Amino acid sequence: MYKLLFLLVVAGLPQAHAQTVHSPSNKLTLNFRLSAAGEPTYQLQYGTKTVVKPSRLGVLLQGQPSLDAGFTIAQIDSSRHDDTWQPVWGEVKSIRNHYQELAVTLTQAASQGRRLVLRFRLYDDGLGFRYEFPEQPGLTYFTVQNERTEFNLPADHQAFWIPGDYDSNEYTYSTTRLSAVNSANIEAIQLKSAPQRVQTPLMLKSDDGLYVNIHEAALVNYPAMMLNVNPQTFGLSSQLVPDAVGNKAYLQTPEHTPWRTIVVSDKAADVLASKLILNLNEPTKLTETSWIKPQKFVGVWWEMHVNKASWNYSDASNIKLAGTDWNALKPNGHHGANTANVKRYIDFAAKYGLQSVLVEGWNVGWEDWFGNWKEEVFDFVTPYPDFAVAELQQYAAAKGVKLMMHHETSSSVTNYERRQDEAYRFMKAHDYESVKTGYVGRIIPRGEHHDGQWMVNHYNRTAQKTAESRLMVDMHEAVRPTGLHRTYPNWLASEAARGNEFNAWSSGNPPEHETILPFTRLMGGPMDYTPGIFQIKLEDWNPERNKGKQVHTTLAKQLALYVTMYSPLQMAADLPEAYEKHLDAFRFIQDVPVDWDDTRILLAEPGDYITTARKAKGKDEWYLGSITDENARPQTVKLDFLTPGQLYEAIIYADAKGASWDKNPMAYQIRKQKVTSKSVLKLQLAAGGGAAVSFKPENR
Amino acid sequence: MYKLLFLLVVAGLPQAHAQTVHSPSNKLTLNFRLSAAGEPTYQLQYGTKTVVKPSRLGVLLQGQPSLDAGFTIAQIDSSRHDDTWQPVWGEVKSIRNHYQELAVTLTQAASQGRRLVLRFRLYDDGLGFRYEFPEQPGLTYFTVQNERTEFNLPADHQAFWIPGDYDSNEYTYSTTRLSAVNSANIEAIQLKSAPQRVQTPLMLKSDDGLYVNIHEAALVNYPAMMLNVNPQTFGLSSQLVPDAVGNKAYLQTPEHTPWRTIVVSDKAADVLASKLILNLNEPTKLTETSWIKPQKFVGVWWEMHVNKASWNYSDASNIKLAGTDWNALKPNGHHGANTANVKRYIDFAAKYGLQSVLVEGWNVGWEDWFGNWKEEVFDFVTPYPDFAVAELQQYAAAKGVKLMMHHETSSSVTNYERRQDEAYRFMKAHDYESVKTGYVGRIIPRGEHHDGQWMVNHYNRTAQKTAESRLMVDMHEAVRPTGLHRTYPNWLASEAARGNEFNAWSSGNPPEHETILPFTRLMGGPMDYTPGIFQIKLEDWNPERNKGKQVHTTLAKQLALYVTMYSPLQMAADLPEAYEKHLDAFRFIQDVPVDWDDTRILLAEPGDYITTARKAKGKDEWYLGSITDENARPQTVKLDFLTPGQLYEAIIYADAKGASWDKNPMAYQIRKQKVTSKSVLKLQLAAGGGAAVSFKPENR
Repeated sequence: MYKLLFLLVVAGLPQAHAQTVHSPSNKLTLNFRLSAAGEPTYQLQYGTKTVVKPSRLGVLLQGQPSLDAGFTIAQIDSSRHDDTWQPVWGEVKSIRNHYQELAVTLTQAASQGRRLVLRFRLYDDGLGFRYEFPEQPGLTYFTVQNERTEFNLPADHQAFWIPGDYDSNEYTYSTTRLSAVNSANIEAIQLKSAPQRVQTPLMLKSDDGLYVNIHEAALVNYPAMMLNVNPQTFGLSSQLVPDAVGNKAYLQTPEHTPWRTIVVSDKAADVLASKLILNLNEPTKLTETSWIKPQKFVGVWWEMHVNKASWNYSDASNIKLAGTDWNALKPNGHHGANTANVKRYIDFAAKYGLQSVLVEGWNVGWEDWFGNWKEEVFDFVTPYPDFAVAELQQYAAAKGVKLMMHHETSSSVTNYERRQDEAYRFMKAHDYESVKTGYVGRIIPRGEHHDGQWMVNHYNRTAQKTAESRLMVDMHEAVRPTGLHRTYPNWLASEAARGNEFNAWSSGNPPEHETILPFTRLMGGPMDYTPGIFQIKLEDWNPERNKGKQVHTTLAKQLALYVTMYSPLQMAADLPEAYEKHLDAFRFIQDVPVDWDDTRILLAEPGDYITTARKAKGKDEWYLGSITDENARPQTVKLDFLTPGQLYEAIIYADAKGASWDKNPMAYQIRKQKVTSKSVLKLQLAAGGGAAVSFKPENR
Repeated sequence: MYKLLFLLVVAGLPQAHAQTVHSPSNKLTLNFRLSAAGEPTYQLQYGTKTVVKPSRLGVLLQGQPSLDAGFTIAQIDSSRHDDTWQPVWGEVKSIRNHYQELAVTLTQAASQGRRLVLRFRLYDDGLGFRYEFPEQPGLTYFTVQNERTEFNLPADHQAFWIPGDYDSNEYTYSTTRLSAVNSANIEAIQLKSAPQRVQTPLMLKSDDGLYVNIHEAALVNYPAMMLNVNPQTFGLSSQLVPDAVGNKAYLQTPEHTPWRTIVVSDKAADVLASKLILNLNEPTKLTETSWIKPQKFVGVWWEMHVNKASWNYSDASNIKLAGTDWNALKPNGHHGANTANVKRYIDFAAKYGLQSVLVEGWNVGWEDWFGNWKEEVFDFVTPYPDFAVAELQQYAAAKGVKLMMHHETSSSVTNYERRQDEAYRFMKAHDYESVKTGYVGRIIPRGEHHDGQWMVNHYNRTAQKTAESRLMVDMHEAVRPTGLHRTYPNWLASEAARGNEFNAWSSGNPPEHETILPFTRLMGGPMDYTPGIFQIKLEDWNPERNKGKQVHTTLAKQLALYVTMYSPLQMAADLPEAYEKHLDAFRFIQDVPVDWDDTRILLAEPGDYITTARKAKGKDEWYLGSITDENARPQTVKLDFLTPGQLYEAIIYADAKGASWDKNPMAYQIRKQKVTSKSVLKLQLAAGGGAAVSFKPENR
């Protein structure tokens, strides 16, 4: 690592009003400027192209003068930073953190000389900046009323957006010009939205060929940032998620906001390859991480989604957690999490080398868990009468498989927090190593939102608490990630977007969905998307209740998702009996790693297609995934990422001729081929299709 | 116990619209009636006098038809109940529960035949009634928007009231006609009040000689009820405390509201003697209660109030719970909870036979605990560097004294709930048997109120959790009690009103204050008022900061409070050095019990005077307290409560000649006198004064 420091103390010098810095390779230029009224602004250029026009910065406080004007520059610190670090797990083995930093210390003469620091980090692939509130006499405790961060875009870009719901990010993406952003007619899950409010990561594409992604990094002790779109000016302005009384954040100096991030390139692939958000997060404090295990798992889960089984043990409709005699309930006869069924999954995982088995619906409370804004729903330690904790613990141990815990909170977070310690002790006592948490429904404390400061603190505290107990965690219905898996590598994944499950009980995810997610949701971190559905048409499971329901991809595309959507935690989401029918295709799920030495984004266009190749951790094996939207498309892939001179056997899992997501989704073909780094692979992706390829070195 | 059941099934009979029942001795008459529109109403008579004119009943639901009209009577159950039970501790050894019950089952034909039960219990000293929501197809989960319980009073009674603040009950009482109730000009602590809203217990006195007290019993899973006063009609209507989003209660059938209570008599003393509220609470589920110990205690407490010491260890003003090196803080030199000082209190308690020593300010976080709406303030397990937990544990044990734990939450209740289990384990590990909790400041979850359903559940859960750990609890700044100490006898006391402490740092409590509290706050249960201040003028402790501050009673009245204000937990609130100067008077505090076989309210008039005699538990010793307001007054007390034929030595702790609360408050005289049940005691109470008397049998 080297660090060059240019310190320019301007006090005493003629008053400075502006500062320009360049990214390490001069790709990007940042201009900071103070207006005549002392308002901080910034501007970002990509070569000669404008990424962000002059845009205001500032923070509005409650009951105190705001920190957005009346400033003078007290000090400017400029420095260069370049080092390389190794993630505990990830898409690449090591990550270079190379940026030009500009830290501008501002003072407000009219308000006790209060100080605010604007810290910019300019990378070749984008910009991060944040507000820092130093400890100072005039500012100790303060309440953020709003943030006036602007991203004034130069033109009416194409945008890939979801509505600015404070409580859910489980939407399909709309692709429109900025001027046409309007969520008024979108069927909302828990929408508290203004029609021009959208969520981040927001993916944008300009007519002059720029790909721009706006998000945030290291969301800690602060609400999530959403963006208000001005359809006339194409200006975006930050909208922080409010708490129960309308405030945004309660802070105490010294403190800082998350980083606001802008990733930019003229190549879409560079956006996917960017490590800017991870770089802006704090390194982990964990020194011993051998207990953190990227892994694949099956689970008693999809069979509930396809109406073959239920989470609930009985069909009683009025249950109180305290005082119910669970043994006296009449079983409904199709409870998924029963001991025999779980053993079946354990057997399957053991037989095919998957590490874990998730079991949902194991614990009491599912009879009326949803929709009642009820506080005492689950206790996280009491199994249903037909789920034998100790017996399954022994059975799984004998088979070398781990059970994965499930903590659905029904968003009664106060209840969960009261019981978390005991729940984790229960997990440790029964050999569980990981937990999937869930936050379905309206938050308790009532009036709080999934994406507000209080819940952000809950998710982060949960990541920390699980780490203290050496437990891995996967959060569903949480705020979307911001790279905190660098700091908490036991936080393997989150859902925080519209997952594969929506195909089971809604209009589904359109075929383009998975070509957008890596450009949006996955910018912040791994998603537990639950790929690997083989039985595409769901009527086969339950003709009556699944009428017309299907997954909106081909089977081959389901395989490709294991590569195109990175996660250290990948579910093989379908039922064992679905896989047993297609063991040749399942072979790819068995083989594909969840941790990588290297990643190459070979072809990418948001909303259209993605082709990604990755090198297995510590092995000269490569895996490739290629997906398309609703359009069939040929993809020509140069294999120049392979080790030169090495012969590989490629196993190609492809859409069969005549395959398509809607008409013939399960038609796949598997072929083997010898290849080298000089080979070119021609893939023919069906409509809504994809291809998955493994490359293993051949001994000669 | 005997129980007579009169069951009248009216279905099929000519439609019943009204029902009248009488209290066991016919003192009270209740009339229930359904209006033409099917609205339930009730009316209450005391002999020929009207207590409550016809008044509506009902509950308004959110998003569902309300339960206040359109009813027909489906069933009327009438029964007589008479039994006697023994409290774990209290003012009397056994309590008779004797009432006439009327349960009216109503149905709403227009709304799926939904059922509501109105249950009335008519005692000779008052009425209790509640709403019951049976389990039924048409009603499972529901949200209470409001309750339309009315108490339509027949005339413009005198009322003893405090403002209807959702977050504090620490007010002096206003004594006005109902028509003059107006809190607009009252200096509020955390007022969210409409000017005509008042709190319960509301004490009323009619011009025709009735004393009426309106409150509630068994406040469980429901917000506190406040009352809106109509100054024209003298109608009172219930106002439930809202949650963060404006709802009142989230309920699930089967469920019921707390009891609404009306205690009534033509003698003020009967109101004080009423056990109606206790009777309406559930018996305790605890079978082993030997660990529950009524007790007296001293504490490192008043010295902070009189500015001799501080809760905080340092004068730092910006502290973060996580990451602060407490040992590195600069001590301010006057931290009260230091080991040497605590030992001084332990020595004092041991020497004079007091059971416990409370220590406030022992744990880190006091530097900036107040006023910042901050979540992470205290952790309840980390002592300040100068408080030696293990050393003090040993020291106290050697002296036979218990330390009392202090958990100030600063109303960050989410933080407390996360840490409660660990905090109680810490207590058990260090031999603490009781905890004083505190809820100063604005509640977190933000938007919730001290008296709302969520906090009510917290207090009750805390009573239960402490009971599970065999810990006693004393809650400050909690909702006012409603007799739940019958159910949770480990919940020894609450503050929940304006305590003695206000004399230290405000305009103080007027001399009448303690003559009103038993008629209001204490109707629901014991108060930790912290009597026993001997050093009445507070300038002596800190001339500069306590300028003009004093306790607004005489010293003798401070002694009398140990009898007039019942609590199983009584503090000797002053400093050891204050007591050492007046050990002759302190003798009464040493002697006075905190648990009783019998109680006689001898003289009482709210706002004017109270004289109470109590018989010590299991002993033929009696103690008498007599207090007056700002007026000096003679009180003549017949001692006919003493055992006939037994000679007693009475020690009379009285105001000395010339004593008065403002001019000469510490002038007392102690005299001994032989008395029998035929004696008459003449007490001369000074302005703001009182007298305390102990009666011990003489061996002849």
